[in-house]
Amino acid sequence: MIETPSLVDQYCHGVLRTELGLGTFEARLGRGDGPPAPGTTLFDTQTGFAVRRWCPPLLGLEPHCPPARYLARRRELGVLEAGRRLLRGSGITTYLVSSGLPDDLTGPEEMAAAGDAEAREVVRLEPLAEQVADTSGTVAAFLANLAESVHGAATHAVAFAATASLAGAGPALAPEPPGPGAVRGAAARWLAARRVGEELTDPVLLSHLLWIAVATGRPLQLHAGPEEPGLRTDPAPLTAFVRATAGLGTDLVLLPGLFHHRYAARLAAVHPHVYADSGAALARTGARAAAILADILELAPFGKILFSTGAQSLPELHVVGAHLFRESLNRVLGTWLTEDACTPTDARRVAHLLASENAHRVYGLR
Amino acid sequence: MIETPSLVDQYCHGVLRTELGLGTFEARLGRGDGPPAPGTTLFDTQTGFAVRRWCPPLLGLEPHCPPARYLARRRELGVLEAGRRLLRGSGITTYLVSSGLPDDLTGPEEMAAAGDAEAREVVRLEPLAEQVADTSGTVAAFLANLAESVHGAATHAVAFAATASLAGAGPALAPEPPGPGAVRGAAARWLAARRVGEELTDPVLLSHLLWIAVATGRPLQLHAGPEEPGLRTDPAPLTAFVRATAGLGTDLVLLPGLFHHRYAARLAAVHPHVYADSGAALARTGARAAAILADILELAPFGKILFSTGAQSLPELHVVGAHLFRESLNRVLGTWLTEDACTPTDARRVAHLLASENAHRVYGLR
Amino acid sequence: MIETPSLVDQYCHGVLRTELGLGTFEARLGRGDGPPAPGTTLFDTQTGFAVRRWCPPLLGLEPHCPPARYLARRRELGVLEAGRRLLRGSGITTYLVSSGLPDDLTGPEEMAAAGDAEAREVVRLEPLAEQVADTSGTVAAFLANLAESVHGAATHAVAFAATASLAGAGPALAPEPPGPGAVRGAAARWLAARRVGEELTDPVLLSHLLWIAVATGRPLQLHAGPEEPGLRTDPAPLTAFVRATAGLGTDLVLLPGLFHHRYAARLAAVHPHVYADSGAALARTGARAAAILADILELAPFGKILFSTGAQSLPELHVVGAHLFRESLNRVLGTWLTEDACTPTDARRVAHLLASENAHRVYGLR
Repeated sequence: MIETPSLVDQYCHGVLRTELGLGTFEARLGRGDGPPAPGTTLFDTQTGFAVRRWCPPLLGLEPHCPPARYLARRRELGVLEAGRRLLRGSGITTYLVSSGLPDDLTGPEEMAAAGDAEAREVVRLEPLAEQVADTSGTVAAFLANLAESVHGAATHAVAFAATASLAGAGPALAPEPPGPGAVRGAAARWLAARRVGEELTDPVLLSHLLWIAVATGRPLQLHAGPEEPGLRTDPAPLTAFVRATAGLGTDLVLLPGLFHHRYAARLAAVHPHVYADSGAALARTGARAAAILADILELAPFGKILFSTGAQSLPELHVVGAHLFRESLNRVLGTWLTEDACTPTDARRVAHLLASENAHRVYGLR
Repeated sequence: MIETPSLVDQYCHGVLRTELGLGTFEARLGRGDGPPAPGTTLFDTQTGFAVRRWCPPLLGLEPHCPPARYLARRRELGVLEAGRRLLRGSGITTYLVSSGLPDDLTGPEEMAAAGDAEAREVVRLEPLAEQVADTSGTVAAFLANLAESVHGAATHAVAFAATASLAGAGPALAPEPPGPGAVRGAAARWLAARRVGEELTDPVLLSHLLWIAVATGRPLQLHAGPEEPGLRTDPAPLTAFVRATAGLGTDLVLLPGLFHHRYAARLAAVHPHVYADSGAALARTGARAAAILADILELAPFGKILFSTGAQSLPELHVVGAHLFRESLNRVLGTWLTEDACTPTDARRVAHLLASENAHRVYGLR
Repeated sequence: MIETPSLVDQYCHGVLRTELGLGTFEARLGRGDGPPAPGTTLFDTQTGFAVRRWCPPLLGLEPHCPPARYLARRRELGVLEAGRRLLRGSGITTYLVSSGLPDDLTGPEEMAAAGDAEAREVVRLEPLAEQVADTSGTVAAFLANLAESVHGAATHAVAFAATASLAGAGPALAPEPPGPGAVRGAAARWLAARRVGEELTDPVLLSHLLWIAVATGRPLQLHAGPEEPGLRTDPAPLTAFVRATAGLGTDLVLLPGLFHHRYAARLAAVHPHVYADSGAALARTGARAAAILADILELAPFGKILFSTGAQSLPELHVVGAHLFRESLNRVLGTWLTEDACTPTDARRVAHLLASENAHRVYGLR
């Protein structure tokens, strides 16, 4: 058993503040997946099994208890107290919380208080731009405020994140900043056409945003592939962007989604400033998570892999993500030791790199 | 050991009626693969090993006996008696048999009698259209007869299937039915140019066929990816078709082939009316099948996964497919239990969903 | 424990002749990967762990000893003696050595002497063409000398290899030889524009080279996919080339790189003249290698899979590649035996086919 006393969750979101019924809870458990087949529920998934395994004991129930009983106990404790017990039982000591989600989720301060942990903000770029657009009267004011907002955010945020999956989005990942004329034109068109609250999808403005963020020197989190299998992924633009940002002093952290962990791991091996997240893929996969983690450790150097839960809305997902990671890491490293592939000291070093040391180095955490 | 007393083979074909020599048997074992390397045979594959492991005992021989001895015993019993013993030893209690293959294979009634099982027909759309074309004198008659044939088939068939792998075939997966003019034009061109027995590949007519089938409300089996690695798979058209058919009340069952089980499983997770077959990928893979099944269970809800053998021509392939599935399922669920990932009751529920309950629900079997 | 007394390394390169410091050694260990993350080294990878596990004992040190100690001992012995001990400890009895690498690496004769083994040359086509271009005055002379050189090389080399990854290079994999006019035009343009030492990348000339090589009847090694994830792989041209060369009496050996072992294995199953290398993917993957090998054995017939190390520059990589292969094969076949998937005789046959028999047959080795 290899100890990971401290986990830095380098990519997660806050939790809901409202009491949840069984149906609402289940919908959040599915993270955007469709309704279940007739006669089944979204607890009939590996995530459902994992929640039933690890969360009930944190609320004083037996593991694997029926969903209805778990939800009743959760409501009995209240959303705040249940959230405190769950987050404090996750073993996570630092949360890097992405801001700017549409739901009314808890921010870094509340996550820190509820989880008795450190928490820092990762600023999502598109919502920031949308907010600036809502309050800027002219194109010139918008562009000036945008630059100021990003640089301002860099003083307190530990990183930036692009919300959209950019792997299929060639133009937004242009290997050089768009020229001032193109940016002004795109801003004028977008500001003229948009309604308040509308999402930013213009590739020139996205590219402009990415390059402003790169210039701050803060690490930039990028989605390396879509969750939706129907979207074709062309790795060429991301690779070109990776090459174009080499040597600028800004690290890129790739969030691989469900299908691209090997691709992200390989990019992390090849490029000094690129890191690969291991968590979001794990957290959905329940009993199969160790194989995914072994896959990532196969292709990326141990100094380039980061832990995260990718959790959102339910503190149960933070718990499940952390437990799956620790259990998977123990299984993979345990196999290595059994096979004499490395020494116990080596295995402990790998565990600490992935659990927290790499994140401390990349994000400049204390 | 988790019991699966009843297996519904939701995608298979009939078996040959003729006695087979070693060479002919081997060729069928390879399912269209090329001849073996010099000095080896197609028994030098995982499928070959699996046949030698599970089939000889059903014919009264020791497991792993040499191929020549097995074939001699098979001929001694005769093709009918050998087929009866093999199918009855498979543990399959319901066969959904695809019709319309060029070979003279047994149909559902003969499969039921030989296997002492239920059997229902899955009507393949292209052969149906070709048959209608052979007997229709004019374009108008062809189109009228086609619609009538599909709707007529829907009264006795449990499902329809598109023969071709449609994943690369954008136009045939058009997200809306082609207009009457386009259909008439395509039909006129095809009928004028075709020779009797020629396959239907016109994308407009294929699309027209698919949408007639969707309108019947019967589940539609679609190949999600080609077996041949040289054909590029573009998931976008299939995803568009999946979206366009949502909410119409017709289920889609994706047959993932050798390379797309994760993709099919993910589509089944996202879309309420989409199901993923787990069998055809397993049946080729012998000792590695448990990892494939674990992969599918990782991404798709347990209520969305179906068993099949994908077997054709040789009852040995039905036996191997069923044994591999049961053994793989036992290994995966056994691991879950060892790791305390779920309760024995949970594991039994998963086994029954995959083995038969999901198929009973989707196909409306008694 | 299944014995593989003899290993034919069907795809490797020579080793460096110079003494190496820790930094240079580490760079070679990474095979072109970027520098490690700050605070880590390239020994913090699965390849690094594997080198520390298997190589120190061959130089008289304990397994897993620190890198600095290992390097000190290596220098103490000298590069020649260390190389002899390592290669002789690898268990490889025949090396097929690719020629024409830019570094000053040992050739087949030196590999044979150092490793106390057989060694044969695999001639890389592009360097051969570049050498011919350096010494030919006219287009006509270049083309005549090129054909003569390839046919001359075929008298002593056991195979040809295309250096470039051709999977993305449609035109170079044209399914028929380019016409004489096109070849003359391409040669004229290339000879006029090139500087001495410049690499050949013209697709018409590459295609011309491939087809001359095919005409010699010697096996042709082709890279089935790039190592770099940013390069999009279109399998269609390779598949078309495979089809076009069927029945010509020339075998193709696919080197799948890090991402395409399943694709190469499937092509080997479908096409009689196609073989799949299993080694280059394994050799990078350390503790995860058995899963990769199981994947390949799942899709390709046992008579179609070849062992290699893909090693270059460091004899440590030959050692690691050979140990990983033997250990992975033992693990996979051991599992098969535990599960009664085959007999011990079957397992030994599989081991011998992969370790050496297939290579002896394909390359006509004694």
